[in-house]
Amino acid sequence: MYLSKLFIPITKELSSEAKIKSHQLMLRTGMIKQSSAGIYSWLPLGFKVMKKIEQIVREEQNLIGAQEMLMPTIQSSEIWKESGRYEDYGEEMLRIKDRQGREMLYGPTNEELITDIFRSSIKSYKSLPQLLYHIQWKFRDEIRPRFGVMRCREFYMKDAYSFDLDEEGAKKSYNKMFYSYIRTFNRLGLKAIPMAADTGPIGGDLSHEFIILAETGESQIYADKKIFEVDLNKYDSSDGSLEKMRKDFSSFYAVTDDKFKENDFNEKVKKESQVKTKGIEVGHIFYFGDKYSTPLNCLIDAQGGKKAPVKMGSYGIGISRLVGATIEANYNNEIMKWPRSISPFDVVIIPSISKNNKENLQKAEKIYKELKNQNIDVLLDDVDENMSNKFKKHDLIGIPYQIIIGSKSEEDKFEFKELNSKSTMLSLESIKSQLKNK
Amino acid sequence: MYLSKLFIPITKELSSEAKIKSHQLMLRTGMIKQSSAGIYSWLPLGFKVMKKIEQIVREEQNLIGAQEMLMPTIQSSEIWKESGRYEDYGEEMLRIKDRQGREMLYGPTNEELITDIFRSSIKSYKSLPQLLYHIQWKFRDEIRPRFGVMRCREFYMKDAYSFDLDEEGAKKSYNKMFYSYIRTFNRLGLKAIPMAADTGPIGGDLSHEFIILAETGESQIYADKKIFEVDLNKYDSSDGSLEKMRKDFSSFYAVTDDKFKENDFNEKVKKESQVKTKGIEVGHIFYFGDKYSTPLNCLIDAQGGKKAPVKMGSYGIGISRLVGATIEANYNNEIMKWPRSISPFDVVIIPSISKNNKENLQKAEKIYKELKNQNIDVLLDDVDENMSNKFKKHDLIGIPYQIIIGSKSEEDKFEFKELNSKSTMLSLESIKSQLKNK
Repeated sequence: MYLSKLFIPITKELSSEAKIKSHQLMLRTGMIKQSSAGIYSWLPLGFKVMKKIEQIVREEQNLIGAQEMLMPTIQSSEIWKESGRYEDYGEEMLRIKDRQGREMLYGPTNEELITDIFRSSIKSYKSLPQLLYHIQWKFRDEIRPRFGVMRCREFYMKDAYSFDLDEEGAKKSYNKMFYSYIRTFNRLGLKAIPMAADTGPIGGDLSHEFIILAETGESQIYADKKIFEVDLNKYDSSDGSLEKMRKDFSSFYAVTDDKFKENDFNEKVKKESQVKTKGIEVGHIFYFGDKYSTPLNCLIDAQGGKKAPVKMGSYGIGISRLVGATIEANYNNEIMKWPRSISPFDVVIIPSISKNNKENLQKAEKIYKELKNQNIDVLLDDVDENMSNKFKKHDLIGIPYQIIIGSKSEEDKFEFKELNSKSTMLSLESIKSQLKNK
Repeated sequence: MYLSKLFIPITKELSSEAKIKSHQLMLRTGMIKQSSAGIYSWLPLGFKVMKKIEQIVREEQNLIGAQEMLMPTIQSSEIWKESGRYEDYGEEMLRIKDRQGREMLYGPTNEELITDIFRSSIKSYKSLPQLLYHIQWKFRDEIRPRFGVMRCREFYMKDAYSFDLDEEGAKKSYNKMFYSYIRTFNRLGLKAIPMAADTGPIGGDLSHEFIILAETGESQIYADKKIFEVDLNKYDSSDGSLEKMRKDFSSFYAVTDDKFKENDFNEKVKKESQVKTKGIEVGHIFYFGDKYSTPLNCLIDAQGGKKAPVKMGSYGIGISRLVGATIEANYNNEIMKWPRSISPFDVVIIPSISKNNKENLQKAEKIYKELKNQNIDVLLDDVDENMSNKFKKHDLIGIPYQIIIGSKSEEDKFEFKELNSKSTMLSLESIKSQLKNK
């Protein structure tokens, strides 16, 4: 892609509402545009990042055998009345009347709908366990939407649901998801801490939040940094190994400020291992047993002819929120550097261009074609602008690697730079292999 | 995927509302489940097909340089008041009040919102032309939703928008989309006729519907079958060549019944070339100039310091509708055969299994692994059911190729069958290469 063709409305004008750095950066680099309070359009740059996150989440869900499907955004109020949450949910639920006067709503979550689908589809314990997920837009009518995509009204979320015959089975499903979440956040280049959590309005017995570290986060975090040393490669996909994995993670101290006790912290965590920082919740998993299957009468024919309500869990990851959270975790000193796995482009070529000299641009175009042929997703900055402005701009766009074609370029060597590092002079062949290996 | 693990609630019970064959087939094979009138959940089988269609549409949009982005589902009424369509749209627009009492709506289309984004982003003719698209859920509150996903309320659509300085440029964008649509439908295995159309409520000057042939279609079609012989390979991506392509398509007689005149038809089309059948609209493209840019004040700095409203077109493809339309076009005599490009699986292995003999299942599992290793997406029917039932079931699921492991299997040859054809005995190597070449 040539930058001059990319729909990327870079701007210096910032709304006064943009108070946190991810919101500011996303507006400045034209990743998003607000259309109403808490509702955003995703422009090409932001869209690419979000899609990459979505794809990693999808691959990791598929890997544990979860099956993808898709529930609609608009739901009938009836199933919510069956579960009892239609009244409970309060004003955050966007309630709608259709032209026939039927009470509908924009789904804020999908426990009711998935239970409704399940009860009419699966009857026998032989078809269990089942793990189903979808990635769909949700709506929560926040009274004060803020922080850009971090706390917006229309948001993109992966939510998965597990169905098991008994609690023992359900915990195995829970552990699989736990494992999948750790893997997912690792691939996104994020340090995520699983933290035992209260179950809140979804209800139930067992719950973890996944919180990534970011100094600008919403919650205060106290943790033992040894939790980052837990090595997923030590575990296999057997139930026993996954149970051990969850226990190992849980053995390290990690709490938010509502559960924090100074004495406890100092007793359990050595001074040099203590992490005190802030964090952002990016995932949440719950086991809640028959909380929905009982009122919705979602029964399974168990062995011996008995019927029993299916045991369920739900598992969310905020996809649109992760775009903002990743920025909060990575944007420092006016430089944003995307983790390679979700960067909008693999590399940017920045030629020094002047009206009278197009030689650098021609060189750049040649390199562009060669990299394209290698399936490297490359952006070419063909805009006629001075280099210092270009560098500032690319510090914000955040593509992790740059090829700079300017005064330093030699016949067959080019300046190659990783953001936040010093540049080196490399042949195109070495650049290619560096980009392929990263 | 093993069929016993796939979430595929096959059913014989059909709602009396399922009157057309695509609706019936999708319910019977558990591709979809209705959640409210005209609103469906997409279960894994249906979801896979829809995603494959989406991906082909996406690739073909990208190929002509259109850039993907994503607008939200919920829009503010304000921009619709600016364009004047808030009142005009009538009851099909799902109108919503949020908790603050603001008038919102679920987007039935996106001309207003994209114009709003564009006017705040692009000022200069130098940044033109632009082609932007998104693939997003839309809602139209049909008074009588029917025909399953063919005429539902919440539907999935690709809509693209073009922005040009003048009509001449706009027609070039229009021709690119025209070309992209023909390519897209070809890849989906569909015969699509572009047909000059009235512009209807979107308004404007130039418009084509793309209609695929299906005997159960909603519109009566009269056409010259030579239109299917137009060879896209004859044209290149230059503006002149694309203009010629559109003219060539337009030179063949093709009308719906509202414009049909018997005499005309007989005069212009030789008897042996006459096609009289029914069709389903799956795409619609419009050029409408400044219909939205003028009221929304979306102005471009043209050369010579003047300002002019940008010239726009819009281009839709019904993604969820295409799943149903493809079934209507391909499901005959109780056999559905998916075009390979969008089939939910590449091939299904059907072993004859009995309680006392698992040998066939073991053979099947071995083949399954080998095909998986070749990146062939294979379904293994490991259900304990007699072969005649299995065949009937797979006639409906519609995977185009089958490997049958039963009495006919030899040591190293297996029965390989393409739906609607006779089976042959082939070695696994030949099967692999057949599957890879198709």
